Amino acid sequence: MAEYVKSSEFWGFIKDPLYGYIRLKESEKNILDTTAVQRLRRIKQLSGAEYVYPAANHTRFEHSLGASHLAGMLAACLPTELRTEAVTKLKMAALLHDVGHAPFSHLLEPTMKQVLGKTHEDLGSWIITKSALADALRREGIDPNEIGKLAIGRLTGNEKPFMNQIIRSSVDVDKMDFVLRDSYHTGAGYGTVDVFRLIYTMDVLDGDLAVNSTAIPTLETFLLARLESFRTIYFHRASRAAQIMVQEALELAEPELKLLSFKTPEEYLALDDYSVWSRLKTCRKSKPIIEDVENRRLIKCSYEKTFFVKDELLSSVFTNEAVRKQMEQEIAHKAKIDPDQVWIDVPSLPSVPYHYAMEVEPMDIPVFHETSDGKKVRVNVTELSQIIGVMRVFMNIMRVYTTLKHREAVMKASEEILGKPTISSQVSY
Amino acid sequence: MAEYVKSSEFWGFIKDPLYGYIRLKESEKNILDTTAVQRLRRIKQLSGAEYVYPAANHTRFEHSLGASHLAGMLAACLPTELRTEAVTKLKMAALLHDVGHAPFSHLLEPTMKQVLGKTHEDLGSWIITKSALADALRREGIDPNEIGKLAIGRLTGNEKPFMNQIIRSSVDVDKMDFVLRDSYHTGAGYGTVDVFRLIYTMDVLDGDLAVNSTAIPTLETFLLARLESFRTIYFHRASRAAQIMVQEALELAEPELKLLSFKTPEEYLALDDYSVWSRLKTCRKSKPIIEDVENRRLIKCSYEKTFFVKDELLSSVFTNEAVRKQMEQEIAHKAKIDPDQVWIDVPSLPSVPYHYAMEVEPMDIPVFHETSDGKKVRVNVTELSQIIGVMRVFMNIMRVYTTLKHREAVMKASEEILGKPTISSQVSY
Amino acid sequence: MAEYVKSSEFWGFIKDPLYGYIRLKESEKNILDTTAVQRLRRIKQLSGAEYVYPAANHTRFEHSLGASHLAGMLAACLPTELRTEAVTKLKMAALLHDVGHAPFSHLLEPTMKQVLGKTHEDLGSWIITKSALADALRREGIDPNEIGKLAIGRLTGNEKPFMNQIIRSSVDVDKMDFVLRDSYHTGAGYGTVDVFRLIYTMDVLDGDLAVNSTAIPTLETFLLARLESFRTIYFHRASRAAQIMVQEALELAEPELKLLSFKTPEEYLALDDYSVWSRLKTCRKSKPIIEDVENRRLIKCSYEKTFFVKDELLSSVFTNEAVRKQMEQEIAHKAKIDPDQVWIDVPSLPSVPYHYAMEVEPMDIPVFHETSDGKKVRVNVTELSQIIGVMRVFMNIMRVYTTLKHREAVMKASEEILGKPTISSQVSY
Amino acid sequence: MAEYVKSSEFWGFIKDPLYGYIRLKESEKNILDTTAVQRLRRIKQLSGAEYVYPAANHTRFEHSLGASHLAGMLAACLPTELRTEAVTKLKMAALLHDVGHAPFSHLLEPTMKQVLGKTHEDLGSWIITKSALADALRREGIDPNEIGKLAIGRLTGNEKPFMNQIIRSSVDVDKMDFVLRDSYHTGAGYGTVDVFRLIYTMDVLDGDLAVNSTAIPTLETFLLARLESFRTIYFHRASRAAQIMVQEALELAEPELKLLSFKTPEEYLALDDYSVWSRLKTCRKSKPIIEDVENRRLIKCSYEKTFFVKDELLSSVFTNEAVRKQMEQEIAHKAKIDPDQVWIDVPSLPSVPYHYAMEVEPMDIPVFHETSDGKKVRVNVTELSQIIGVMRVFMNIMRVYTTLKHREAVMKASEEILGKPTISSQVSY
Repeated sequence: MAEYVKSSEFWGFIKDPLYGYIRLKESEKNILDTTAVQRLRRIKQLSGAEYVYPAANHTRFEHSLGASHLAGMLAACLPTELRTEAVTKLKMAALLHDVGHAPFSHLLEPTMKQVLGKTHEDLGSWIITKSALADALRREGIDPNEIGKLAIGRLTGNEKPFMNQIIRSSVDVDKMDFVLRDSYHTGAGYGTVDVFRLIYTMDVLDGDLAVNSTAIPTLETFLLARLESFRTIYFHRASRAAQIMVQEALELAEPELKLLSFKTPEEYLALDDYSVWSRLKTCRKSKPIIEDVENRRLIKCSYEKTFFVKDELLSSVFTNEAVRKQMEQEIAHKAKIDPDQVWIDVPSLPSVPYHYAMEVEPMDIPVFHETSDGKKVRVNVTELSQIIGVMRVFMNIMRVYTTLKHREAVMKASEEILGKPTISSQVSY
Repeated sequence: MAEYVKSSEFWGFIKDPLYGYIRLKESEKNILDTTAVQRLRRIKQLSGAEYVYPAANHTRFEHSLGASHLAGMLAACLPTELRTEAVTKLKMAALLHDVGHAPFSHLLEPTMKQVLGKTHEDLGSWIITKSALADALRREGIDPNEIGKLAIGRLTGNEKPFMNQIIRSSVDVDKMDFVLRDSYHTGAGYGTVDVFRLIYTMDVLDGDLAVNSTAIPTLETFLLARLESFRTIYFHRASRAAQIMVQEALELAEPELKLLSFKTPEEYLALDDYSVWSRLKTCRKSKPIIEDVENRRLIKCSYEKTFFVKDELLSSVFTNEAVRKQMEQEIAHKAKIDPDQVWIDVPSLPSVPYHYAMEVEPMDIPVFHETSDGKKVRVNVTELSQIIGVMRVFMNIMRVYTTLKHREAVMKASEEILGKPTISSQVSY
Repeated sequence: MAEYVKSSEFWGFIKDPLYGYIRLKESEKNILDTTAVQRLRRIKQLSGAEYVYPAANHTRFEHSLGASHLAGMLAACLPTELRTEAVTKLKMAALLHDVGHAPFSHLLEPTMKQVLGKTHEDLGSWIITKSALADALRREGIDPNEIGKLAIGRLTGNEKPFMNQIIRSSVDVDKMDFVLRDSYHTGAGYGTVDVFRLIYTMDVLDGDLAVNSTAIPTLETFLLARLESFRTIYFHRASRAAQIMVQEALELAEPELKLLSFKTPEEYLALDDYSVWSRLKTCRKSKPIIEDVENRRLIKCSYEKTFFVKDELLSSVFTNEAVRKQMEQEIAHKAKIDPDQVWIDVPSLPSVPYHYAMEVEPMDIPVFHETSDGKKVRVNVTELSQIIGVMRVFMNIMRVYTTLKHREAVMKASEEILGKPTISSQVSY
Repeated sequence: MAEYVKSSEFWGFIKDPLYGYIRLKESEKNILDTTAVQRLRRIKQLSGAEYVYPAANHTRFEHSLGASHLAGMLAACLPTELRTEAVTKLKMAALLHDVGHAPFSHLLEPTMKQVLGKTHEDLGSWIITKSALADALRREGIDPNEIGKLAIGRLTGNEKPFMNQIIRSSVDVDKMDFVLRDSYHTGAGYGTVDVFRLIYTMDVLDGDLAVNSTAIPTLETFLLARLESFRTIYFHRASRAAQIMVQEALELAEPELKLLSFKTPEEYLALDDYSVWSRLKTCRKSKPIIEDVENRRLIKCSYEKTFFVKDELLSSVFTNEAVRKQMEQEIAHKAKIDPDQVWIDVPSLPSVPYHYAMEVEPMDIPVFHETSDGKKVRVNVTELSQIIGVMRVFMNIMRVYTTLKHREAVMKASEEILGKPTISSQVSY
């Protein structure tokens, strides 16, 4: 901390419940105060999870600030020569990595993909390079194009891979922050991980960000915390029920509200949780859904099955929307209800928060061992940890949702078509 | 916990970051799922504070749930005979004590008082007795009229005063919860108080809720935590800047938007942070203010003075709006700017969160001493604690705000009119 | 808590940093104040770990109190009919489960086994049934013989297995408390587990204590926390160095000091960390070792190898002392040093704290699934959790220690005899 | 942290439950591993408090390490030019500030004063300058004489007062650490203070360490935490009972055991909690007292009176041992018991932990206000905080203890002589 406080560039502190004092330079404060970043105050980190964990109302704003803080810390600790500009870039990229998020975080993602063929990352780069934020960055001597790429871990050229990996890998500052922060604000209790041990011992190996083998216990704890958070928060049954409903409301409303017909970054930035929620209540098709959510009349999970083995049919359900639709119709038919009343949910859907965090290989960055004479040797992480090996193959869960009154019928129809369900986690609220 | 889990009325747990597991009965869950209570999810506990403490996005919903939990705990611990119905009433009253809150919590309060002559407590009673919530309560065998009064600590008749005091006094479950919760979500760090020591040792004395003298250190710590939270969170300079701006936007927009022209409880309940924020952006007068807030272009505190002595003129500033307006004009005149660019801010304004919590006497419930032979004797708290005595007279602060460009001029004008300023707390962000 | 405070048997609270207020009945307070229990104040929970984690100075006393608290909580939550006496027994058994521990917890265990053929559990039963503690128990209407058996999880007769399993199984109150407590006082950070979720959802199934399948994420987290604590605290390299040294001092001193020649429980209870440490400094053979420890001149780990596969030779090293001694001599011979300067360390040694906790099957109590119609069905835990499956086979580590000056020689000799070492965790202090 | 990890002098981390990772340089590690510092592992921070708070078993060792860590942090943050040597000195001085402590911390202090005319600070300087520690310091290029003075805040010569004040003042690193640490390990819950806010905002003003007026809320919270810790931990009635007994055992045993007849620092360093406790059990006079303590048969507080006013007689009781002895005899005479069975206890006794921390003026270092143009102006703290003003005059408590059986008699006799008692805090255990 010391060097910061005395620096002439020091602007001040922001207090964060996780890290205590986050110090900011004047230049960072200027970027923080742009429309694009301030808007993140009105986009919740975990849309839907608050219906299970009432205190889960934290936003992308404090998460982005936290990720930037960890990026600065990690950059400062890496025993490699990093020029001040590289540290600044990393902090900025982490601060801006979520700037393209749509309202309700992941829930507008499928519609966006369908209508625009874009992801929030595409929009993030667009905003960083084309909005007033680009000017603000230039005023601080920072190249928006470079940050636009680094913010999504896709910087190319002369830069070393570790720059991208700090922002986007299985042990990046984004995940470190959200595992801690989601646990803190939900109270779920799985994310009390000593990420500082990871940060203090990480290194750069042949250009890659690398984890020190002495931190394997922390790494295992971190990866398990991520997995349990996935099961108990992000993919919680009631949490997903709310998410599926809002996602459908957004999809149904699009033809009428044309939320995604924006032309400029400014028009896109005008969309936030507040404005879109209000508009969804004005649209005939989405209104009843939103009213159900507001009154916590959620759809119900009638069937759940966990798969540990590979199966071609199943794989297609997990990845192919047409197959999923087809199966929804079969179940509806057998249950003698409208197909609109059946939803199949799998963890790989883009509307599932952090689904990509589980999708990627659990460890895409190397682990190294430091020998007694100071050499750093790459080691295979599964050689060191069978636990990490097991966590790779996790999370093939399929669920079938329906409305309260069709619960029984859909349960039976699903069993006939999909086989005996696996036992599963309780709906806590 | 034991008795709860085994009970046939037990519905389930909700996880809270402060208290861990909050257990709910079926009947409590039914009230929780009403429109009136669920709406509190869209009303932030501390509107404005998030501009200083980015993580302060918690809502009235989790606070109400927490207050209800503490009410149940306190009711169960009081060494007095309380029938099950009394415990249920207390929990319901605590759950519903904030149900009348307007969007942005306290910020619509002044306009509401002016236009309707009502406070959020009046509206709370109205909603409890006249909306669908009343029916829901009746279905659970609970009298809405009684809860409507108890929820604001104004139950009359045969009931003992301690029932009201559990809900509304200087050491009530509302304050216990918000001191802890606001500290947790802001990270400000003043509210780590062992309220369970208070709860486990409280008693009823001649019908009054009473604090055991053995808990004096905890009581002092609690009252100081409340005071420091007031200074560093609720009345923080930048936090108040945002609040003053939103409050003004609401006031200016009212003639056009007619937010307060609701006729039924349902119409009132349709107002929440989301819907009102969106509408403020459609109104010519409020739009530029909201845009300034969204981009964190806040008005600035140019002058601050703390008073320890009584003074007639000053007292009138603190309590009389006309005097305050007059003084704003004088300062503006001397600074040669538009009077609309000057705001005098004092802690007793209804738009200040928890201002009433500081207004009331720091200790309006008795302290008792238990003698060696088990008798309980009332004692004067100031005899036991000089610290508590001192905290009574606190919080006579006057501030003058203006826009960034008039900062210097208003500073000088204020000094000429109001005298040398007191030194004061830094604007942290 | 409620029922406790109002009860006439209520004596008072003891404050614990983990659980807040632990309430005690008069009868529990009377047992707590016996010589046998008070002596645990002078026996550290983790002898040796303080040389790595300076704050790890907690004792068996607070751990026993904590385990008793959790036993009471679990007994109260189990949805089975438990008479008050059964709850009392469980709390007493948990309070007394460590009463037979020798000074330095596990470090005197090997000598005790060799000289007396007894374990700390045998001595525990002896103390519970034959010392003044037995009289104290009888005065409270409790049968010492029954508690003497239950305290080590070996109650027989009509009682159901779950009684023993609450005290001694893979998810017993002993382990729940030490995982949390060791993490708290060391600061190691692996033990922040929501054990209350386990407690609130546990049940009795056909007489067995059983874990609800909805708590699988917590169970996985708990088991991993236990494993990582083993690696980073109990079996930490420097921590073990101190333990090996003290264990050897005790062994060497026995012929001269005759610490284990006690005849009565009272004589045994006179042995504690304080008295034995002082006496070790008076014995010619143990004095230099203790001086080395006091000045933190610890022996060094020169070689470490982790095994994942079964191997007959290796198995014998892990379980057979003679084979281990033989191998120490071979290494010493090759390194051309005195065999007394070589120590082979494996996790299954009785001087390793909690070695038994890892030895037993990771899950010896069943997991059940509650069907939608309320039936409880036993399920195979490995069917639900591959992670738990993997954790079973862990912890086959072999280390070779020597003094600082022979480090290099022993490293080479070990490699020649035992093969290339596995990379391993850093000595943190 | 950054600069540390990359430094060539970096030795490694030690994990602390309060601050996470404490990094050490090679030179600091060398001083840490001396006999004088390692001995502090066997001297509890709060002798006696464990009889009330069972988990309070932390030692002077981790406290010293923590104080050193905070000293380094504060030195690094102060916006004044501090050469590296000055930072090193401050860290060393903080590490060694308790090195002269006798066994049982403050409990041997009165006997030491009587027999040797020395305090633990005198002995600290002696050890720093005359033991092997002096050589170790010299090997690291540090002047033992200078550290010997700085460690007790008595450095003279050219150095600025703030160097001493960092080590010894009302807001020094010693107090910051113990307020946090004692709260953590006892669980008492009064010490959750954001000391980092103090550290990050402190400055040097005309050579004095100074507190920024923006940190007044934190300062008030810190001072109240210190006060409440005094009342509920250090001067807790049962905690003091144990302390008085051990202190008396030490006093009575001295003529026989001659613990204080040491000639060399090495002989003094051989005294620690372990060795002295064992020897007290061998001495005829102290043995029964220690046995009573070991079995928690504590003396009882029969009378307590708090004074808020100045009174000559009372003042003499608080400061003059002869007067106290005389009064003990009067009470014993009236109660018709042996004067040896009566103990008058006041907070100013040297055996009271941290009594000096309350004795000194609550604020002996200045507070400053930074004006808008960057000037730092000294301000009177009582002008800013009436709460701090009140806390000055606190803690005039007089208690009379006796054995259980004489409780009633001494209560009456005390009331007759000293007047009606004040009500007071409960003995929690």
